[in-house]
Amino acid sequence: MCRWAAYSGDPVYLEDLILSPAHSLIEQSHHARQAKTPINGDGFGVAWYGDRDEPGLYRDILPAWADRNLESLARQIRSGLFLAHVRASTIGETSRVNCHPFVMGNWSFMHNGQIGDFAVLRRPLELALDDTLYNARTGSTDSEILFLLALQFGLDKDPQAAFARTIRFVGDEARKRGVTPFIRFTAAFSCGRRLFAIRYASDEHAPTLFWAKLESCRSICLVSEPFEDASRQWQPVPPSSFVTVEDGNLSLTPFCIEKAARAA
Amino acid sequence: MCRWAAYSGDPVYLEDLILSPAHSLIEQSHHARQAKTPINGDGFGVAWYGDRDEPGLYRDILPAWADRNLESLARQIRSGLFLAHVRASTIGETSRVNCHPFVMGNWSFMHNGQIGDFAVLRRPLELALDDTLYNARTGSTDSEILFLLALQFGLDKDPQAAFARTIRFVGDEARKRGVTPFIRFTAAFSCGRRLFAIRYASDEHAPTLFWAKLESCRSICLVSEPFEDASRQWQPVPPSSFVTVEDGNLSLTPFCIEKAARAA
Amino acid sequence: MCRWAAYSGDPVYLEDLILSPAHSLIEQSHHARQAKTPINGDGFGVAWYGDRDEPGLYRDILPAWADRNLESLARQIRSGLFLAHVRASTIGETSRVNCHPFVMGNWSFMHNGQIGDFAVLRRPLELALDDTLYNARTGSTDSEILFLLALQFGLDKDPQAAFARTIRFVGDEARKRGVTPFIRFTAAFSCGRRLFAIRYASDEHAPTLFWAKLESCRSICLVSEPFEDASRQWQPVPPSSFVTVEDGNLSLTPFCIEKAARAA
Amino acid sequence: MCRWAAYSGDPVYLEDLILSPAHSLIEQSHHARQAKTPINGDGFGVAWYGDRDEPGLYRDILPAWADRNLESLARQIRSGLFLAHVRASTIGETSRVNCHPFVMGNWSFMHNGQIGDFAVLRRPLELALDDTLYNARTGSTDSEILFLLALQFGLDKDPQAAFARTIRFVGDEARKRGVTPFIRFTAAFSCGRRLFAIRYASDEHAPTLFWAKLESCRSICLVSEPFEDASRQWQPVPPSSFVTVEDGNLSLTPFCIEKAARAA
Repeated sequence: MCRWAAYSGDPVYLEDLILSPAHSLIEQSHHARQAKTPINGDGFGVAWYGDRDEPGLYRDILPAWADRNLESLARQIRSGLFLAHVRASTIGETSRVNCHPFVMGNWSFMHNGQIGDFAVLRRPLELALDDTLYNARTGSTDSEILFLLALQFGLDKDPQAAFARTIRFVGDEARKRGVTPFIRFTAAFSCGRRLFAIRYASDEHAPTLFWAKLESCRSICLVSEPFEDASRQWQPVPPSSFVTVEDGNLSLTPFCIEKAARAA
Repeated sequence: MCRWAAYSGDPVYLEDLILSPAHSLIEQSHHARQAKTPINGDGFGVAWYGDRDEPGLYRDILPAWADRNLESLARQIRSGLFLAHVRASTIGETSRVNCHPFVMGNWSFMHNGQIGDFAVLRRPLELALDDTLYNARTGSTDSEILFLLALQFGLDKDPQAAFARTIRFVGDEARKRGVTPFIRFTAAFSCGRRLFAIRYASDEHAPTLFWAKLESCRSICLVSEPFEDASRQWQPVPPSSFVTVEDGNLSLTPFCIEKAARAA
Repeated sequence: MCRWAAYSGDPVYLEDLILSPAHSLIEQSHHARQAKTPINGDGFGVAWYGDRDEPGLYRDILPAWADRNLESLARQIRSGLFLAHVRASTIGETSRVNCHPFVMGNWSFMHNGQIGDFAVLRRPLELALDDTLYNARTGSTDSEILFLLALQFGLDKDPQAAFARTIRFVGDEARKRGVTPFIRFTAAFSCGRRLFAIRYASDEHAPTLFWAKLESCRSICLVSEPFEDASRQWQPVPPSSFVTVEDGNLSLTPFCIEKAARAA
Repeated sequence: MCRWAAYSGDPVYLEDLILSPAHSLIEQSHHARQAKTPINGDGFGVAWYGDRDEPGLYRDILPAWADRNLESLARQIRSGLFLAHVRASTIGETSRVNCHPFVMGNWSFMHNGQIGDFAVLRRPLELALDDTLYNARTGSTDSEILFLLALQFGLDKDPQAAFARTIRFVGDEARKRGVTPFIRFTAAFSCGRRLFAIRYASDEHAPTLFWAKLESCRSICLVSEPFEDASRQWQPVPPSSFVTVEDGNLSLTPFCIEKAARAA
């Protein structure tokens, strides 16, 4: 279980989410309250959109609370759209290539959750990737594969359908191998224009997700657990939701892996 | 506040203290129970004595729980005398040079605690070092200075007196500058033949220290907090104690900074 | 192109190969003479056999010349059988998981060379692995796959045949995809009892390999390029050779990927 | 000996100096031509001025050529004033705290060169610092001390006089201890408005320094050795020069440690 925060709105310094709030993301890296473990110290990362189509990416293996580079970058870099993540490792070594966010072209992606029986599923999931995406695999996490599968299944065209198909595919491959599908998937991702998020699980325990609005800078924040930020009213995102953020507005639709995947 | 473990006895694999026990040192790196914080994830280190007079030293900046190298080294290296430490940083960046143990010639040293008003005291403490020791300073922690001061004050001749003089000196320098002496100092150190430890504080809150004996391998363990090791009976070391371990025997004497320092 | 050194004989300190000789492996990490590039600064590693069946493994991402841990470990650890490697990256990030040696059970492996058109071949090569070996993949180098393929193809039973079959398989898969097979492969590997090496290339440019004997400690060294060690007479290993070292003796046989693979 | 590049002018991406040019700074990190060694692989750093008074700072221990974070940051960050440095270590471990640039408040500083007999001089030089600057010391390099001394000697008021006094002070302290003053000092530094550089040595071998102008973006570059950039005409800075860059103009004055220091 990891913790993450995503932002869309008028440009702000990254520190406004990562460092400054009481119970900020860095605070959550050692004192998370709504996660299985309070410690999310197995690396961190941030992807932000600036002048270019592709996002910037800074990931490193120290706990977020100990990284002076992160502190300085968060004070300097302003962005109107960014993802930030602190990792509690379940699969894969503490290595930059296993840290979130993952970036491919203009897309960025980060995830909190896991795939059950990944040892059985890793190969069939990787096999579904075309050569370019297959070779783009640099780490060994389930999260990276979920991102690459969504790219494979049309993330560029229909983000909701692409992830629905991805998750359904993971379930189908599990069933084919006689294991019960198990996936927990609370993720945020962006193409650089819009910010998306999904809260979903194959059981009753979808990892938490909250959102809040700040009118004054037309901004939406999405977080694994709320900051203590009196200026914002945090609201839970219901399980099985697909979130789209654009122009300071958040829309919530049911995320049904059957229907959405069929539409794809 | 950090956590540490020290061993003297028949050679055992480092993993016997670091990895294997329930509530081992690595377990304590994320779930310490008797420390101010449960997390000791700001680097780690181990110093062990083998065939040479000088100890081996392995320190790194990842949390101990995440370091595959440590896991492999702990499974391979056998030693009859070693120190192991997981760090929770109070002063100094997460950098190898700030990780314990510190090593100088045949001496190794590790520490749990701190010096109050260190910003006021750093300069006069460093000034007391002769040129060789002064130039040996590579990090920026109070712990490293305490070790260098003890070397300066005769660690080779009389370990107890050297540290008594060190701690008294820190207090004197504090008083000279109008600040109340404040030191918490639970430390282990070794010359390669004997293992020493001190539990001391200028107030009532000396960091915890426990010891246990295992007859079968003539061994003594000293730890910040006990492992769950049914084969050992952990006993608290009283505050203001000086511990000497040699040939499978532990002796406890009062550690009085006045008397011992005078004797020096 | 990387540089490596392997040792089999009476136990010596690792530093005897890694640090002490003029033009030692660490010297070669910044001033290699017979490699495409003089710099081999993209991480390093050492695997050594001690009391256990499985080897110890220490790999890290700093250049070997800058790693104080390596220096200390090399001064402390004695072994009668070890592999040491300094990396010049062609494929894969500078990350511990991409550093050699690779270890699996009691086997260790390190490599200097490359597979041509790896982007085309990565998937079919990985596909040939059974689930356990497939899931053991943690990095993204061609070297790691070559090792896993050899394990798949019977390294435990017949090391020569297993690597012959591996290399032939790489060539076959290349031809199937319309690319000319291209492989350069100078590698050392060990099960913990015997030390093996192969010098092979699909063209005229097999990476260099030398060996030398030191009677006084019944030892054989294998190196990418010779140390300046007056006590040893370095001899080139001819291209297309399979080297077996056991009990202080080195035997050289032709390494023919056709014949050996058929025998498998 | 290290390599560095500094820029002042219309905002450009950092990659325009660090990555893109033939013989860019990253290229110089492994193939420097005018340095004692072609390898500058002992860490790197960049300090850039953006919206805030204090600069951003990113330093890390990998060789610059291997750091994917640097690549991404250099593609994203635009600045009209920045310093970039690749390190070849003479004194001090490969650790972030020993990497250039050093930053203090709004000042940034980087250096190529060294102080002779630093083991003799380290203590008296550090002693000259007031408490705040003394405690700001986090590493163990001569370069960091030179920067702190300049701050001590009035960098804020008169940059030229402050460094003249610093260098004269180093010489005086050497003479007092019976060692011949030896300093090589090619450095760049900035307060966030103007960019300064000094080329100086106590002997004939001041480390090289070049500058070039690009009218189209009112920019000045200062470099240890020229990029292969046909759009710029590189000119050597004479030894014993003080360089001031402001509003696209470079002014060169003699840097005389006697006169300037007296003026201070």
